[in-house]
Amino acid sequence: MAAVGARAAFLASFSSACLRQRVLSRNSGLSRPFARQTDKSGFRSFSTVLRHQRFNQVARRLSVTASMSTNAGPEAAANNPGYCGSPDAATKSYYVQQTMYRIKDPKASLEFYSKVLGMTLIKRLDFDEAKFSLYFLGYESPETIPNDTAEKTAFLFKCKATLELTHNWGTESDPDFKGYHNGNSDPRGYGHIGITVDDVYKACERFEKLGVEFVKRPDDGRMKGLAFIKDPDGYWIEIFDVDRMSGLIHGPSS
Amino acid sequence: MAAVGARAAFLASFSSACLRQRVLSRNSGLSRPFARQTDKSGFRSFSTVLRHQRFNQVARRLSVTASMSTNAGPEAAANNPGYCGSPDAATKSYYVQQTMYRIKDPKASLEFYSKVLGMTLIKRLDFDEAKFSLYFLGYESPETIPNDTAEKTAFLFKCKATLELTHNWGTESDPDFKGYHNGNSDPRGYGHIGITVDDVYKACERFEKLGVEFVKRPDDGRMKGLAFIKDPDGYWIEIFDVDRMSGLIHGPSS
Repeated sequence: MAAVGARAAFLASFSSACLRQRVLSRNSGLSRPFARQTDKSGFRSFSTVLRHQRFNQVARRLSVTASMSTNAGPEAAANNPGYCGSPDAATKSYYVQQTMYRIKDPKASLEFYSKVLGMTLIKRLDFDEAKFSLYFLGYESPETIPNDTAEKTAFLFKCKATLELTHNWGTESDPDFKGYHNGNSDPRGYGHIGITVDDVYKACERFEKLGVEFVKRPDDGRMKGLAFIKDPDGYWIEIFDVDRMSGLIHGPSS
Repeated sequence: MAAVGARAAFLASFSSACLRQRVLSRNSGLSRPFARQTDKSGFRSFSTVLRHQRFNQVARRLSVTASMSTNAGPEAAANNPGYCGSPDAATKSYYVQQTMYRIKDPKASLEFYSKVLGMTLIKRLDFDEAKFSLYFLGYESPETIPNDTAEKTAFLFKCKATLELTHNWGTESDPDFKGYHNGNSDPRGYGHIGITVDDVYKACERFEKLGVEFVKRPDDGRMKGLAFIKDPDGYWIEIFDVDRMSGLIHGPSS
């Protein structure tokens, strides 16, 4: 059970490492009390995961007769008041096209999202009178993006999971501009985007070389194999790979 | 030029309609001064769009000799300091897997995202000790999601553009809980997610019948064919379709 203990322990310590890193980078070592962590910054229990595993053992036996169209387990509609497991046909073509947030300095953000995270600037729109610009970035190969402006726009809005960065002109050089709120201190709300990479350790070694600021390095605490970095405005980005996330939740596959 | 004038005008009035709706819903008619709108809530210029159209006419002629791998126009690397148009090969398998934000009441949020927006609950994780749950939703058909818990986890993290809703237990019934901050009033930061639908008018008629709160209906102001709705926590969701967004930016295709 050593492995289980270790996993329980690393889940337990995610938040303290996470917040410690965040505070250390600003306040030279001051740390928030662990007791104040009440959400994802507070991964402290492994019992539920074990419970899910036991549930799964039962569910697997039952699944011989269960329809594949029933999303079983904790996700089942019966376990989630309000949830409708049969999407309305009217919504069948919907998809999440973008996440928008404001940025202080497009030069810094474009460098970060293109050089560090490998995203492509699909579309830029400037609004002279209102003095702001929109930068749409996504994981599309540059050579697949049409040069024709109208075709590029249609291409953009067909893409899934893009970022729309909004830049109000002048913030990048305004000494009085206080920066944007990343949602992870009061008043809280938005948390982060999460990017799946091929290998979280390999990715984070590269981020380290590129001078990226970490909220949590993959080996911080005991929750190994999951990282949080910051973009130039301080927005959090979760970095993970499929295998290690599966291992974190269900234990190593081997 | 009537059409151009109309388009200029609807772009001009987006923000006032947008904020008006937002404020009306809370304060029975009070409206913020238009002058305070400084970003996307302030679509006030159409000159840049026209400039892009002229640029495009030139670019189209040049594109005969231009490489398709050059993302031309305002998006070109030369026009965007800091931007690297050739993604590092190390990032070639990256994708945006999730956007996370906190929710007050899972029942209300699950109902909204499943019934209204047609999303599927792919995975739920409960953390008993830390007293929070994570709900991962995406536009995946329920029948494609494996029942096996580990397979489901791997499936989840391979999905693009999911939502991760974080629920700190008890907020839904705590009279002292003040709610989460949606990022669109001070302190600003996060703005919204955007969902592409097949037909923005058809979608909004349905939202209307379902009692969804609007920030901006598609015909509010003169920026026709683009809507903003609110989720149960007040987070904004942009609703649009590819054709009308292309028309808004470049004019009607006909």
